[in-house]
Amino acid sequence: MSIELFGLKGIPLVKEGDNIADLILNALKEQGETLQHGDIILVAETLVSKSEGNVIKLGDILPSEDAILIAKKSKKDSKLVEAIIQEAREVVEVGPDFVITETKQGFVCANSGIDESNVGDGLATPVPENADLSAKKIREQLEKETGEELAVIVTDTQGRAFRVGAVGVALGCSGIDPLWKRKGEKDLYGRELQTTEVATADELAASASLIQGQADEGLPVVIIRGFSAFDTLRNEDSDIHPLLRPKEFDVFRN
Amino acid sequence: MSIELFGLKGIPLVKEGDNIADLILNALKEQGETLQHGDIILVAETLVSKSEGNVIKLGDILPSEDAILIAKKSKKDSKLVEAIIQEAREVVEVGPDFVITETKQGFVCANSGIDESNVGDGLATPVPENADLSAKKIREQLEKETGEELAVIVTDTQGRAFRVGAVGVALGCSGIDPLWKRKGEKDLYGRELQTTEVATADELAASASLIQGQADEGLPVVIIRGFSAFDTLRNEDSDIHPLLRPKEFDVFRN
Repeated sequence: MSIELFGLKGIPLVKEGDNIADLILNALKEQGETLQHGDIILVAETLVSKSEGNVIKLGDILPSEDAILIAKKSKKDSKLVEAIIQEAREVVEVGPDFVITETKQGFVCANSGIDESNVGDGLATPVPENADLSAKKIREQLEKETGEELAVIVTDTQGRAFRVGAVGVALGCSGIDPLWKRKGEKDLYGRELQTTEVATADELAASASLIQGQADEGLPVVIIRGFSAFDTLRNEDSDIHPLLRPKEFDVFRN
Repeated sequence: MSIELFGLKGIPLVKEGDNIADLILNALKEQGETLQHGDIILVAETLVSKSEGNVIKLGDILPSEDAILIAKKSKKDSKLVEAIIQEAREVVEVGPDFVITETKQGFVCANSGIDESNVGDGLATPVPENADLSAKKIREQLEKETGEELAVIVTDTQGRAFRVGAVGVALGCSGIDPLWKRKGEKDLYGRELQTTEVATADELAASASLIQGQADEGLPVVIIRGFSAFDTLRNEDSDIHPLLRPKEFDVFRN
């Protein structure tokens, strides 16, 4: 069994109103590639937020008293902290050099996922308003124009508890279930599996991150071809929620 | 830029004393493949523990009073809990259906990483005693016999805080740095990067997990070919420790 990952060259710097599916199709054409059944298209969230005009002008923000306090504690800019608070449902932890929140969308991550890389000076991109819907729109257009069954995952890079370093994670998912429930399947010795739920969309996002990089690679779209569980996980109505652990079940928040 | 991942067919059920590098070389030969400069070889930890005779016979274990108490609280078998305690430096959290510990090696994970899948009945495999050393031995033999610069990563599948579902992670690493420090590099707009530390070994392990699977796939060894940062990260003395966040810096443990 083998899987191929490749980055799309020639995706331009995206601006508000750009159609990401069009950009992907054009880049594929220039690369002499066409999409195939089961291809998974991973799109960096910055691309999505910028195309949706979801960009924060930090200079325009008036920090609240809360933001000023948290800015002092976290040694972050108070305007950025106000933006973080506005994107959050709850502030989970504040420490020197970090603010961890639960975003409006339910992601627990640093800085509400607000990113100051790969966007113009004085600007920042929050996570997409509804990355599932963004993924769905891209997938539906790509499927319509190619006639193939595909999946689209909107990706971010986030830190973790207990381990150092950021990894690629999925923010939105369309076309396949993000969680592979394998309960009842057997191991090599015929015993029932213990690890029965695999966060497949996060593993796909982590894989894509090896190519997307974090710097000036300019490869924000990656295609994963040959993932053998595509048909098993196919779901036209999927979204990211199976990967989000509700607060009441999260031992590290209670 | 493209990356290829492929699983090695024909790796047999491993027993104590088996030489994993030999098994890999034989399987490659049967597949008509040879290793190339920069190939990263990902080996499932169960394979390593079994070859090292590092297998727990659950029936032989006499549970301590602590184990009996934790077993009641976590609804787990008291012999398994005793094994979990013996592999742990500290019990981090106990709840209905889970015991999270810091292992002797410094990994914070469920059940001290003890795995009851893909091992004979009544047996369980802990994480390898020293997965860095296991990876190093495999790498050195593979490099010697092929003449190529390679990396070996010992992988596991673990759950996470905040997100549902397990993902592939690295337990041991040899030949490349597990953490990619990118401080000072620039983004597409020439601004200094924010996310400056990427847990590359974990992203590689998550990628391999897409092929290794969790069930009866029988593909515990995966080769990743074409990872462009191999030369940048090349380090003959690397180990996993850069990925382990010390307790005193972990906000979710204090």
